[in-house]
Amino acid sequence: VSEFDVPSGLPARIPTPLAGDPRLARLSLNQRTTADWTLAQAIAGCAEAGIGSIGVWREPVAEVGVETARRMLDDAGLLVSSLCRGGFFTDPDGFDEAIAENRRAIDEAAVLRADTLVLVAGGLPPGDRDIVAARDRATRAIELLVPYAQEREVNLSIEPMHPIFAADRGVISTLSQALDIAERFDADDVGVVVDTFHVWWDPEVLDQIARAGGDRIASYQVCEWITPLPADTLLSRGMMGDGHIDFAGITAAVAATGYSGDVEVEIFNADVWAADGRDTLATLSRRYAELIHPHL
Amino acid sequence: VSEFDVPSGLPARIPTPLAGDPRLARLSLNQRTTADWTLAQAIAGCAEAGIGSIGVWREPVAEVGVETARRMLDDAGLLVSSLCRGGFFTDPDGFDEAIAENRRAIDEAAVLRADTLVLVAGGLPPGDRDIVAARDRATRAIELLVPYAQEREVNLSIEPMHPIFAADRGVISTLSQALDIAERFDADDVGVVVDTFHVWWDPEVLDQIARAGGDRIASYQVCEWITPLPADTLLSRGMMGDGHIDFAGITAAVAATGYSGDVEVEIFNADVWAADGRDTLATLSRRYAELIHPHL
Repeated sequence: VSEFDVPSGLPARIPTPLAGDPRLARLSLNQRTTADWTLAQAIAGCAEAGIGSIGVWREPVAEVGVETARRMLDDAGLLVSSLCRGGFFTDPDGFDEAIAENRRAIDEAAVLRADTLVLVAGGLPPGDRDIVAARDRATRAIELLVPYAQEREVNLSIEPMHPIFAADRGVISTLSQALDIAERFDADDVGVVVDTFHVWWDPEVLDQIARAGGDRIASYQVCEWITPLPADTLLSRGMMGDGHIDFAGITAAVAATGYSGDVEVEIFNADVWAADGRDTLATLSRRYAELIHPHL
Repeated sequence: VSEFDVPSGLPARIPTPLAGDPRLARLSLNQRTTADWTLAQAIAGCAEAGIGSIGVWREPVAEVGVETARRMLDDAGLLVSSLCRGGFFTDPDGFDEAIAENRRAIDEAAVLRADTLVLVAGGLPPGDRDIVAARDRATRAIELLVPYAQEREVNLSIEPMHPIFAADRGVISTLSQALDIAERFDADDVGVVVDTFHVWWDPEVLDQIARAGGDRIASYQVCEWITPLPADTLLSRGMMGDGHIDFAGITAAVAATGYSGDVEVEIFNADVWAADGRDTLATLSRRYAELIHPHL
């Protein structure tokens, strides 16, 4: 019996009602949704909730080491829908270090057999107002990383971020823009992330999902736009069903492309984080079964 | 001497250094930038600061009545670069009332001889997730209003709003989308507002400004995107120069279209509102002269 046997780290508890429900077959827990859980706890939580995939983050993986993380995930039979995250390419003074850091992230994605390594472009460097040049640096970085990732059979995925983050987090703002970059490469090598929080408002979202097609969508992530927007915009995402996003329409558009991958629930929200992780998993499983699964 | 003679409502003060500077020739104060000023105070403040145009809001105009407002503005020799604002068309239960209210706004714009009546689409009605239908209602409302506005020689302008407001304020999110609607009509009848805060992040912004052309841009408004974003996103706008927007590039693109109208400074920000209005005008005049005027 290894120290990572599920449900290590969690007290005994009645399984959630939806564990074993076939509607959860493609549900993946993005680890940041239960931000205060260690990797071991997140793995145990997924096992208890009947969730078969997980999107892992580099920091909690690093706490145990990537080889150990891989063993823990294998022991639990968990698939890795994504590794979050690489990117942050936009500071010219840190460009070389960013490339080196992203190569390390690619190495980790290879060990973890993650379906994709999610890339976030990065924001404008301090005092820099040239968003066009920042976008170009992000594009060049991805070009530099593709051969390295290709050798290791790691898919890179470009995540367009809501324009609320254009200044300080992600200068790639639309699915169209992400696809313009991704389409320079084979779909096996570079895809895009469709995250409902980031793209729901876009008048072109359905057309651009169709343009992407099932092989170019590397990850489909769901979380909600809620109002009033919480004061810390980084933590402004909500539980599906609590806000304004048309999950039926966007999910159906993703499904219509033939996308057959997992659907990650990724929620950054202080209230969600304050709740018991297993309650969060129970809620998101129900919401997923009701709001997402019927349209897949 | 009428009660509205400038500088009524303001104590004696040394004129700001830039009053009379020819670089301010096209500067307009959007009244919401000095939100605690009455119309009389705003008029007096503009006169003192050497600002020759003002973008007025319906509420402070209503406090004195539109005919009186027109007389006050005429007495001060102030031009009206815009009337803010009409719109809010997206609630199906309030659609007819919204049309009636916007006809009243058009009447006011005619009396005020405002260069344009700014229209904000409105957000998603409570519990409604169909943003496509909401956008269609906004479009239909504009179609209904154009003949009425045309008879009164009032230009309507569609203001795309930053996607941060798509859920609760403005479902028209990009300049491209606003132009798709505006171009159904003569440029004299329906234009667009280019507000740097709303459009700066858009990968297509320069192309869409060029597409609009000088006769379709009904208003050019400047204000800044600052980080960290203030907690109340409605008040998250900053003074030009304090944030991330490339005013040189966007202003040059607007100028290249041949746009010859005023440039409104519209800042919703609690710190700006807490400051003395005349200090705000002195600051924005300097920032305008340094950051905007050279690129016009």
